[in-house]
Amino acid sequence: MIKVGIVGSSGYAGGEALRILLQHRDVEVSVVTSKKYAGKQVFKVHTNLKGFTDLKYSDKSPLDVASEVDVMFLAVPHGESVKITPKILEQGTRVVDMSADFRLKNPEDYPKWYGWEHTAPDLLSKFTYGLAEIHREELKSAKNIASPGCTACCSIYGLAPFAKAGMLNGTAIIDVKTGSSASGSSVSLASNFSEHANSVRIYKPWGHRHIAEIEQELSYVSGKKQKATMSAHSVNMVRGILATSSFFTEEEIVEAKVWGAMRAMYKDEPFVRYIMDKSGVFRYPDPKIVAGSNFVDIGFEYDKHANRMISISAIDNLIKGAAGNAVQSMNIMMGFKETEGLMQAPFHPM
Amino acid sequence: MIKVGIVGSSGYAGGEALRILLQHRDVEVSVVTSKKYAGKQVFKVHTNLKGFTDLKYSDKSPLDVASEVDVMFLAVPHGESVKITPKILEQGTRVVDMSADFRLKNPEDYPKWYGWEHTAPDLLSKFTYGLAEIHREELKSAKNIASPGCTACCSIYGLAPFAKAGMLNGTAIIDVKTGSSASGSSVSLASNFSEHANSVRIYKPWGHRHIAEIEQELSYVSGKKQKATMSAHSVNMVRGILATSSFFTEEEIVEAKVWGAMRAMYKDEPFVRYIMDKSGVFRYPDPKIVAGSNFVDIGFEYDKHANRMISISAIDNLIKGAAGNAVQSMNIMMGFKETEGLMQAPFHPM
Amino acid sequence: MIKVGIVGSSGYAGGEALRILLQHRDVEVSVVTSKKYAGKQVFKVHTNLKGFTDLKYSDKSPLDVASEVDVMFLAVPHGESVKITPKILEQGTRVVDMSADFRLKNPEDYPKWYGWEHTAPDLLSKFTYGLAEIHREELKSAKNIASPGCTACCSIYGLAPFAKAGMLNGTAIIDVKTGSSASGSSVSLASNFSEHANSVRIYKPWGHRHIAEIEQELSYVSGKKQKATMSAHSVNMVRGILATSSFFTEEEIVEAKVWGAMRAMYKDEPFVRYIMDKSGVFRYPDPKIVAGSNFVDIGFEYDKHANRMISISAIDNLIKGAAGNAVQSMNIMMGFKETEGLMQAPFHPM
Amino acid sequence: MIKVGIVGSSGYAGGEALRILLQHRDVEVSVVTSKKYAGKQVFKVHTNLKGFTDLKYSDKSPLDVASEVDVMFLAVPHGESVKITPKILEQGTRVVDMSADFRLKNPEDYPKWYGWEHTAPDLLSKFTYGLAEIHREELKSAKNIASPGCTACCSIYGLAPFAKAGMLNGTAIIDVKTGSSASGSSVSLASNFSEHANSVRIYKPWGHRHIAEIEQELSYVSGKKQKATMSAHSVNMVRGILATSSFFTEEEIVEAKVWGAMRAMYKDEPFVRYIMDKSGVFRYPDPKIVAGSNFVDIGFEYDKHANRMISISAIDNLIKGAAGNAVQSMNIMMGFKETEGLMQAPFHPM
Repeated sequence: MIKVGIVGSSGYAGGEALRILLQHRDVEVSVVTSKKYAGKQVFKVHTNLKGFTDLKYSDKSPLDVASEVDVMFLAVPHGESVKITPKILEQGTRVVDMSADFRLKNPEDYPKWYGWEHTAPDLLSKFTYGLAEIHREELKSAKNIASPGCTACCSIYGLAPFAKAGMLNGTAIIDVKTGSSASGSSVSLASNFSEHANSVRIYKPWGHRHIAEIEQELSYVSGKKQKATMSAHSVNMVRGILATSSFFTEEEIVEAKVWGAMRAMYKDEPFVRYIMDKSGVFRYPDPKIVAGSNFVDIGFEYDKHANRMISISAIDNLIKGAAGNAVQSMNIMMGFKETEGLMQAPFHPM
Repeated sequence: MIKVGIVGSSGYAGGEALRILLQHRDVEVSVVTSKKYAGKQVFKVHTNLKGFTDLKYSDKSPLDVASEVDVMFLAVPHGESVKITPKILEQGTRVVDMSADFRLKNPEDYPKWYGWEHTAPDLLSKFTYGLAEIHREELKSAKNIASPGCTACCSIYGLAPFAKAGMLNGTAIIDVKTGSSASGSSVSLASNFSEHANSVRIYKPWGHRHIAEIEQELSYVSGKKQKATMSAHSVNMVRGILATSSFFTEEEIVEAKVWGAMRAMYKDEPFVRYIMDKSGVFRYPDPKIVAGSNFVDIGFEYDKHANRMISISAIDNLIKGAAGNAVQSMNIMMGFKETEGLMQAPFHPM
Repeated sequence: MIKVGIVGSSGYAGGEALRILLQHRDVEVSVVTSKKYAGKQVFKVHTNLKGFTDLKYSDKSPLDVASEVDVMFLAVPHGESVKITPKILEQGTRVVDMSADFRLKNPEDYPKWYGWEHTAPDLLSKFTYGLAEIHREELKSAKNIASPGCTACCSIYGLAPFAKAGMLNGTAIIDVKTGSSASGSSVSLASNFSEHANSVRIYKPWGHRHIAEIEQELSYVSGKKQKATMSAHSVNMVRGILATSSFFTEEEIVEAKVWGAMRAMYKDEPFVRYIMDKSGVFRYPDPKIVAGSNFVDIGFEYDKHANRMISISAIDNLIKGAAGNAVQSMNIMMGFKETEGLMQAPFHPM
Repeated sequence: MIKVGIVGSSGYAGGEALRILLQHRDVEVSVVTSKKYAGKQVFKVHTNLKGFTDLKYSDKSPLDVASEVDVMFLAVPHGESVKITPKILEQGTRVVDMSADFRLKNPEDYPKWYGWEHTAPDLLSKFTYGLAEIHREELKSAKNIASPGCTACCSIYGLAPFAKAGMLNGTAIIDVKTGSSASGSSVSLASNFSEHANSVRIYKPWGHRHIAEIEQELSYVSGKKQKATMSAHSVNMVRGILATSSFFTEEEIVEAKVWGAMRAMYKDEPFVRYIMDKSGVFRYPDPKIVAGSNFVDIGFEYDKHANRMISISAIDNLIKGAAGNAVQSMNIMMGFKETEGLMQAPFHPM
């Protein structure tokens, strides 16, 4: 039983991390912090957790938290983690960072994609990108984890098998549809129910910062430089991401070859499911049937008319796209059972 | 480890029973039946359960199922259960009936509320109404369980403390708002997304059949004849029920007295939560924060202007309002830990 | 052709007033004000109106606006109107006030229901309550209009026929379900899509300020003091209100008598529809099929089991519940065709 | 004033055609047919139209309808129109066909995309593709109109300016997100609210039949063969389509050049709006702010990282994507004012 602290656990990703860790048998959540809600019971903010914890929010500094726990989850805004992490690492506490601050291996990607110079570039190598399906072996000996971005990992899951198999040539074209929870719990007119309901809002037609991670990881598995372009939309739902990823090919890719690539990538993966059916309601992956779980669902089709390979992937953005992946990676790092706390069936209909 | 069969498990309540029981440590689901999907894998219908079971739907008769299992869950339409149950009981298999066929103690209530004569009135006494918060002691020695209706139990949870405390005089006025899943998975124009989305549909302004259960149980706990009137609405959501229940009083009921009644009814209940807050987003019960769980959330207010006591209760209609209550009651009946398979935190936001 | 100004037209009700008035053949909208958006084009805020107007928001004072127009629409917060209206009236400009500040005839109702003393009680009699179905004759000679509250008028439409016919004895029980737009465009965590979607939130179990209007108007049509209690819920939709209103009766009220009461109240009303059908999708009023229109739909049922008369009424909260009623009343006051600008069919499905 | 008949007006597109035509000043809707609802009043099916018409559904044959009217709207399933149209044309009645049966100029496209041989290939030239922005001149002398498909025209609006300007080289990649009403009012488990809500369902990853129209029209405006690939998704809303269309370019396309292409295509178009803003809620086109109107909203961005031109277009699928475009084209054909019956501002928020 290890002690875990969560810094910034009043938001959605932090709340889900808390929910999962409260039900995790190898972990005790000993401290959660929030400046805004310091002194308040956690269930005043995460009302859903009433009955599951009597924890109160602490206003302890991250460094003080670090001195009390074995693993720290950071659910802080991008750019905040890099300020507090160096001293935590000095202290020897392990960090599971849910922000973007240590995801990219190349320091130059930070000014390019995030608009700021990385102030601790030497620490980038101390973090392992928390995607078990690609980095499981490294995670076993990892000290710290940089947990992937939600639209990033959803896209990577769909495209990595093709990259690994050498089938992904040319620029990958990604169209993502995300639920509102992906943009967090901060308030604005745009996030008002009246403004968001019944809308399909393209919030990032291009230049999404997650492209940096996507290109990094696809390049990693393929062994060559990969390029991607993404249009990101927010749709009328709370949870989930669907990524429709595609790329043009010189010649037709037959189904058997795709299955081979899938198996080479995902054989024995506990959280990958193929959703491919000729009948029924759910013939392809859909965020609706992964919601509430750590699964990633994957399917594919080939467009013979245009020579386009199409991959479809769906996740729960707050679980497999955030807190679930973080816990899965921590489980591996700490030598726990990889699926501990995460093997929950999705609900239907929800 | 007992063997359980589910008859009619292709619908929503049966699907949730299956989901819960697949993750229940004292139970093996050995057979699930469906005429329509016989021979097909369960996950072709309940795609969410892919990865959790390789069971196929069987077309075995209920009687054949009964001979193989210790407990049978019946998730069949009202009026069907009464046809198959007598022979199952003869065989000695325990039944957890999720239909209405054995909920009412007085056979005359069937023609009155359901429009048909009960054909096995002598069996009504063989079933215990599966509401642990009222009938826990009886459930310990029960042989068979009649699991409550969804809007019925949600209303009962809100009103029973007042009935038990002798505070409920006059007719209880219940206004329920249910999610679409309460009406099952059968198709009709009215249930089409295009027709149902963005609607508030009063589907039963009065005369809802669940009133029979409500009056029966409220009368049971109060020891006197209770009367209720309900208007039932289907709103733009999939899961959950909110019941706004009220009654006029001669004089003001002070808060302390209500808390006393609540505690007298729900002290130490594992699945009852009070949601009452002066600040925050969720100040009263809301289906949104119980969804995916077996909790019932309860709150109350007193209208001094009109001398009206108002009780607010929220459940997940498919869990606490159906499969969850059924499993909770079975756990008690079978001597399992009462919360086994059911102690899952709700998700937020969902 | 008259000139109209709208003060505070950046919100939802003001935006709808603008939309309607831009398409009104007897009106020219000559000035719209907004402190926040002064200098900006209206369509930067109300993007839907792009192509319909090149108006820019002005930061003129209400008094300056008054000097330029024939009629002023006030779409300002409650408590603001009473500060600016006295000087406008002095100047002789007609006011259509969409706030609550001049709705109540009895000054004492303001401290009781709104928590503040009315500072211009002598002006209350200068305003006519803008509900054409009750006050059409007074509106013909009105100088100023106090446009009704949204949940108030929806409830009044459902109950007034009974009150007028002397059938409403005892306290009226009102349960309303409103769309999110009823709470305006100000931002808060509670109004975030992620928090509001899939919820049924009881935001005012009792003590809603609109009860003051409801009791006032029901008492007016019945000639005796009427009492009401209301529980108000916000549901998962943007537009519309459904009011389920009821009252207990000594004896059964037969349908013919209700029809008589309805006709006595609503005969020849251009915007009242009865929705009562034994088959089809929409058997009772539903916000879904009035959305986008100035109609109020009405239906009813009698609960024989509990001797309760049930009235169901639905409106578009921003049209019949705000801007539409305001324009309808203005049309009468100014001698225009009553339906001008308002006779638009609802869309389906929406 | 001409007489118009609508065949098959019980569905959504037919219902919207009826709604628009009932409010059209140059048209009398004299007959509407429906086999299923023959003899019933129209408002029993389209409850929203109560108060706007007392028409009853007729079971007259299309040919009988043709003999009574000047223009016939056909809102029948694909494959039905081609059976009834030849005899109607012989009779000289003008046809506005909302099905796909006469949209494609090349008869060979029917077996290729629709799977059936066209039985009246010589009549294809008698129909003008009803997209005023491309075919206005032809429509002025047209006899019959083939009204475009909803996802087709939305995509064409986004891509045509580039095609016309010679900027569209290589395959166009289209990702569409449609509301549920695009799939009509027929019932199935997949269209149930419980199954569709909160989902993002890719229903046609490739091979959508509308590609045939898209390629035809883009080739027409560009004067060279154009190719397209489309992935079509159904999202959690009722109305509207967003098309995110893109294509790779050799070199960067500067904004001024795009504006030039837009103006060359859409100058003076009454129903085209550009939605491009650096601030505010709606910075790009969104179905939410065209819903209820005949507008098409267009925006664009250039991805410098991947050399990809991105066009964003949004329509109301039942209006600009069906009945509105049909009426607009009819207006031109009949010499009416082009905007008659169609110049309605969208509602917000809806």
